Amino acid sequence: MAGSKYAYVRNFELPDPLLPGTFLVFRLDGHSFHRFSTEHQFTKPNDVQALMLMDHAARDVMEEYKDIVLAFGESDEYSFLLRKSTSLYNRRESKICSTLTSYFTSCYVFHWKEYFPDSPLLYPPSFDGRIVLYPSSREIRDYFSWRQADTHINNLYNTIFWALVQQGGKTTTDAHAALRGTVSSQKHEMLFKSFGVNYNEIDARFRKGSILVRDIEDEPAPPELPEPTPASSTAGDQSISESTSAAEASHKPLKQKKNKAQPKAKTKINLLHCDIIKDEFWDARPHLLE
Amino acid sequence: MAGSKYAYVRNFELPDPLLPGTFLVFRLDGHSFHRFSTEHQFTKPNDVQALMLMDHAARDVMEEYKDIVLAFGESDEYSFLLRKSTSLYNRRESKICSTLTSYFTSCYVFHWKEYFPDSPLLYPPSFDGRIVLYPSSREIRDYFSWRQADTHINNLYNTIFWALVQQGGKTTTDAHAALRGTVSSQKHEMLFKSFGVNYNEIDARFRKGSILVRDIEDEPAPPELPEPTPASSTAGDQSISESTSAAEASHKPLKQKKNKAQPKAKTKINLLHCDIIKDEFWDARPHLLE
Amino acid sequence: MAGSKYAYVRNFELPDPLLPGTFLVFRLDGHSFHRFSTEHQFTKPNDVQALMLMDHAARDVMEEYKDIVLAFGESDEYSFLLRKSTSLYNRRESKICSTLTSYFTSCYVFHWKEYFPDSPLLYPPSFDGRIVLYPSSREIRDYFSWRQADTHINNLYNTIFWALVQQGGKTTTDAHAALRGTVSSQKHEMLFKSFGVNYNEIDARFRKGSILVRDIEDEPAPPELPEPTPASSTAGDQSISESTSAAEASHKPLKQKKNKAQPKAKTKINLLHCDIIKDEFWDARPHLLE
Amino acid sequence: MAGSKYAYVRNFELPDPLLPGTFLVFRLDGHSFHRFSTEHQFTKPNDVQALMLMDHAARDVMEEYKDIVLAFGESDEYSFLLRKSTSLYNRRESKICSTLTSYFTSCYVFHWKEYFPDSPLLYPPSFDGRIVLYPSSREIRDYFSWRQADTHINNLYNTIFWALVQQGGKTTTDAHAALRGTVSSQKHEMLFKSFGVNYNEIDARFRKGSILVRDIEDEPAPPELPEPTPASSTAGDQSISESTSAAEASHKPLKQKKNKAQPKAKTKINLLHCDIIKDEFWDARPHLLE
Repeated sequence: MAGSKYAYVRNFELPDPLLPGTFLVFRLDGHSFHRFSTEHQFTKPNDVQALMLMDHAARDVMEEYKDIVLAFGESDEYSFLLRKSTSLYNRRESKICSTLTSYFTSCYVFHWKEYFPDSPLLYPPSFDGRIVLYPSSREIRDYFSWRQADTHINNLYNTIFWALVQQGGKTTTDAHAALRGTVSSQKHEMLFKSFGVNYNEIDARFRKGSILVRDIEDEPAPPELPEPTPASSTAGDQSISESTSAAEASHKPLKQKKNKAQPKAKTKINLLHCDIIKDEFWDARPHLLE
Repeated sequence: MAGSKYAYVRNFELPDPLLPGTFLVFRLDGHSFHRFSTEHQFTKPNDVQALMLMDHAARDVMEEYKDIVLAFGESDEYSFLLRKSTSLYNRRESKICSTLTSYFTSCYVFHWKEYFPDSPLLYPPSFDGRIVLYPSSREIRDYFSWRQADTHINNLYNTIFWALVQQGGKTTTDAHAALRGTVSSQKHEMLFKSFGVNYNEIDARFRKGSILVRDIEDEPAPPELPEPTPASSTAGDQSISESTSAAEASHKPLKQKKNKAQPKAKTKINLLHCDIIKDEFWDARPHLLE
Repeated sequence: MAGSKYAYVRNFELPDPLLPGTFLVFRLDGHSFHRFSTEHQFTKPNDVQALMLMDHAARDVMEEYKDIVLAFGESDEYSFLLRKSTSLYNRRESKICSTLTSYFTSCYVFHWKEYFPDSPLLYPPSFDGRIVLYPSSREIRDYFSWRQADTHINNLYNTIFWALVQQGGKTTTDAHAALRGTVSSQKHEMLFKSFGVNYNEIDARFRKGSILVRDIEDEPAPPELPEPTPASSTAGDQSISESTSAAEASHKPLKQKKNKAQPKAKTKINLLHCDIIKDEFWDARPHLLE
Repeated sequence: MAGSKYAYVRNFELPDPLLPGTFLVFRLDGHSFHRFSTEHQFTKPNDVQALMLMDHAARDVMEEYKDIVLAFGESDEYSFLLRKSTSLYNRRESKICSTLTSYFTSCYVFHWKEYFPDSPLLYPPSFDGRIVLYPSSREIRDYFSWRQADTHINNLYNTIFWALVQQGGKTTTDAHAALRGTVSSQKHEMLFKSFGVNYNEIDARFRKGSILVRDIEDEPAPPELPEPTPASSTAGDQSISESTSAAEASHKPLKQKKNKAQPKAKTKINLLHCDIIKDEFWDARPHLLE
């Protein structure tokens, strides 16, 4: 066989299996998205279209990889939870990490024009990915709490910051200075007093991030989250369930026959913008942490 | 700080530095490209447009990451050589592997319409990536020989296989059967006798794959590769140097200030379809293996 | 600083932290102990002195490393369970693995003469060690069940095998042949019919292996294991608690101040030869898997 | 098979192969040897017997593991170089690291009484080990230069420090204070002026450390190191070749049939206390870095 005298170089490819029996969290982040969002003139502090595109790409990834049971997105990052029993690609780290990053990126670019029909992509964006292992459900709960708390902190800051700049006429330097050292309650107050904005009435997507959860359809529907009372602090916790779009349905790519685990329980991916720090969300979905 | 009680989950992110002083080979492969090429009706055995799109994406990656000095592509795979002194992303494996895979994927989707203006992308393609470390230049030479020998073997097989099917009217089953057990010289002969094709006159891109090499411009030009004599077996070894396209030049994304190593030596990325198994290519470019 | 121009070589020492929040099992095995036991004329099938020496070395390791809460030994191997919260040596794999192996080896050689006063060590024995991570208590239970089941299988086989050889006058080849394909119940029967031995009356040390467990003294004593009824199958389950020997007490080496976790709860290392597959052992010691 | 339902726990043992084609340096260090040397009343600044015991254990390791071609020891540490082609234990990191550490420890304890007949071991000493990979011979040269430079720095400091204490009657605190900020030449001068000691006439073992090198016997003997001129700075560079002691020869343990690489070239392990920073040592032994 020609080439066989060179084939020894394959021996340098070392195995990289992930420890069995652990939850996998795959997180990706936009690469240089500060510049990317500026060049593509994303609305500040939040660009709904850009966030919906992130959600779309994340949903595509979940449609493709059935072992992902939950995802959480904010800004230019997304975290995915793979069930601890997953044997996706024999749990090879590089394979999983690179493939998921690649597919998300591909979906992002592919769907761009649906969300920005008048603003063509100026150059190819990229993301970096990593996998973190967690041994127990406690850490998974805390991981997602960490991300959602981060969303809250960032969004509160950005909301008041951009109000100061866009409506208050401050320079960005002055706006940062005005916020230095302020605690959460002060920011709420500034926002309300200066700009008449009740932070808790802001779109839950911005305050809570995006949750994509694989719910089991055959089971009785998960208990409703608390009915939002107007102007209450839970205003954003409405469950915004979106069915698979027609566009997505038309091209189911890359079927993973082997990883279609349980063919019996029909599942459905729901998009929510609710609290995932408290127990409610998780109590309603015991299968997520099984 | 809100969220700080959850921040301990970061401790589960373990370091993954690659051994210093080793060459990095980053290889990516199309994910399920058999189906992808069928659905997008790629020409068999080789689709020039598809290969040029691969080359374009690979060149973009090299423009962006200056520590890549060489790349070799065939079919739906591409290998990249990073200099052994590279400190890209502090040599963190997941970061490098996922980012390069992501950027290549993004470029591939981004440029698709330039190469397939009449065949829109039906769904988002993806790639998987991996990094392999090699301690010495000997192994790097052998790695690239391994890939080019593979190109040769596959292309010779595919060329005669598709001739049997497309021109010979054989079924794919019969074509495989006809080729079973044949050696290289027999395939050459079948090709010539049955279809009047001299394998060595076939486009060098198909026979040799694509080589993207970062050449040093200020230095005297690398010694010319042997002048191809007509219809000789080296017919494909012409150096097809392509300058950066205007389209690419207009949007240099994601500048890597830190990784711009030596600002003095101007370099240029050349696309070749020449032999990289023999010494000639390497002797002319000692900087590649430094 | 002289030498500083060489100090860069330290950068090649890569970090090797073990995933937090997981149980560590450290297992060591005698290296070439088949030959070692032959040359030192160990009694077959079990040499009590050799086993007690193993237990002694294992106990020394537990005295030294307070994060080890349990150990199980059979033949020339020993497994140690480190609590999942351990931060011993910052969970660096090589450091933990090599140090524990080294200390066990050192204790084994150091105490040799106490167990073999008339048979000096002919050459230095060695052991190899490895660390395996387990995410949950279920797997820890199964790990120790696996080792104890292995002890049972091996000991039953060896007991009848050596009876055939030593008392039955068979060659080792014939003895192996006689046992080929026999199941457990047949071995019990052969042993009883041919040699009048009730397997269940054999020393529990041989049948169950050695369990070293760090029990909490201040707490009410762990519920007694079932009272052994004479000649019953649980005859070996007596709790053989051994206090620290005077010899050991005289030289407490290498105190690990930092790893002395909770100074309040006094603990005591007990040596048992009881069942650890069923729930009883574990139910009585919930602290082991916390 | 009993136990088979537990055997899945083996799947948690992950592979840990070391990159092929790289040099392996295995380094071990005494664990808490400050205390160990105090309790066993080692002579300060250097205890010849203790150093010779280290050398003996290191030589045993080299006798046992033929792929070790070089070792360097100082104080309570020893570094071993394994040839880059070694396939010892299939290059499994934990296996190699733990076994070598274990065997060294075992030899150290085993031979203790030969070096300290009147000072019995008070408790079992231990060592930790680690493996570092180096891609090229340049880094190996620099690694050993780093260790020998370290030996020089430490020994010069310790020599003058203990002279100040033992002969100068200073407290250790005062001695440290007297040396603070002094450079090498000042230390030489203090030593000569205050105590009449020419540092370069001190035993080369202390100044240069111990080099154990596997020399090829069949080849013409390695070129002689420069003849030491009396009282010159190279006084310590004499080659002290020690043949295998009778004691060692009587019990060749643990034969590694598989790792006995080339049976033709007879080799001999020589103990030297010479310079290994300059080229001479290496030029005479090209096989070390092949």
